[in-house]
Amino acid sequence: MQGTAQPTSQPTAYTPTDRTVPTRSAERASYDRELVHAILDEACVCHLGFVRDGRPVVLPTLFARVGERLYVHGSTGSRPLRTTGGEEQGLAVCLTVTHVDALVLARSAFHHSVNYRSVVVHGTAHDVTDPGEKTAALEALVDHVVPGRAADSRPPNKKELAATAVIRLDLGEVSAKLRTGGVNDEPEDLGLPHWAGVVPLRKGYEAPVADAALAPGTEVPDYLAGR
Amino acid sequence: MQGTAQPTSQPTAYTPTDRTVPTRSAERASYDRELVHAILDEACVCHLGFVRDGRPVVLPTLFARVGERLYVHGSTGSRPLRTTGGEEQGLAVCLTVTHVDALVLARSAFHHSVNYRSVVVHGTAHDVTDPGEKTAALEALVDHVVPGRAADSRPPNKKELAATAVIRLDLGEVSAKLRTGGVNDEPEDLGLPHWAGVVPLRKGYEAPVADAALAPGTEVPDYLAGR
Repeated sequence: MQGTAQPTSQPTAYTPTDRTVPTRSAERASYDRELVHAILDEACVCHLGFVRDGRPVVLPTLFARVGERLYVHGSTGSRPLRTTGGEEQGLAVCLTVTHVDALVLARSAFHHSVNYRSVVVHGTAHDVTDPGEKTAALEALVDHVVPGRAADSRPPNKKELAATAVIRLDLGEVSAKLRTGGVNDEPEDLGLPHWAGVVPLRKGYEAPVADAALAPGTEVPDYLAGR
Repeated sequence: MQGTAQPTSQPTAYTPTDRTVPTRSAERASYDRELVHAILDEACVCHLGFVRDGRPVVLPTLFARVGERLYVHGSTGSRPLRTTGGEEQGLAVCLTVTHVDALVLARSAFHHSVNYRSVVVHGTAHDVTDPGEKTAALEALVDHVVPGRAADSRPPNKKELAATAVIRLDLGEVSAKLRTGGVNDEPEDLGLPHWAGVVPLRKGYEAPVADAALAPGTEVPDYLAGR
């Protein structure tokens, strides 16, 4: 199908900018859209940075991705948005997600490292005010933690919707950075008597622990049992 | 020993400030020094926030704690420090560490949450220029990833020391924030047919994977085998 026009599809990569080209280890950077999405979707917590009174603030917060847009939960979002000059202006943010995959133990102290995958998103966040978008964003936040869960829980009522702030951030200025693979020692160090290799971190989930007040007969749902 | 003066010991808690008292869920905040240290020491990667051209930047980076001081590795530190007006002035930073411990699945979408432990440190970072402090900081960075490892690796040589930047950040304006425990549903939702409970994340490490070029007879060291 080479040459077939696909006018509605996204480019396969984000466009690098001054802010998203790293000053070091540039060979570890990637702008691949699918890779960025996968790194984002695997995390349920991001670190959201913003500026208050001229100084940086970095807070962990729940988030979700819907296509090319991220939604960040307002538990912490309430604070950044109160610092803005209003919805139209928005809030300059940097949203970062990191997975540590393994410790890398080299023979030399200098080459110790970790294998990781991270995504950094620069942009301007806006309060979500449209009721339909807000409802969809809250569903996405629940489904981002456990896919399939939003449909198996009581939806928010008006009071809860009003008590929840959600901000959105479009994926435009985005980069991933990764270290993978093994030890990268100097050739002259290979004969040293120190153990070298990688130590992978454990991933995944333990068995679900049911709430003591669970209604009798309520089984662990398939979307959890399968994890 | 009540009433015994301990003039040389640290206070058991950090002093809250405007920046470290959360605007929401203040009951989850803690300023306990031992708790803060434990949360920091369990992580090998932090998220370092700083301001560049008036906008926030948040980068993941290796760090270590030595007493009441944090050291951050210069692989990413090189960028923030180049934005400062010099060593004396320092760089305003916010350093944040987060552990996600469990997913919390409530019967209502609204009460979905995660159990987590986080620490946020506000302060001014400075380049480490003293050779002795820098050497000690680099050892701490290696030992922070795997305790005992610094003594079992080749120390950095002059060239490697010169190629590595380290910045320091004193623990002064610090807070922890935690969510622990189970589901927090509304009383009227307890009879709903949705499963509720917590799903703990797996923690720890998989078996070490040795480098293919390991010198014959090199065993996995005790400090790794015991993890």
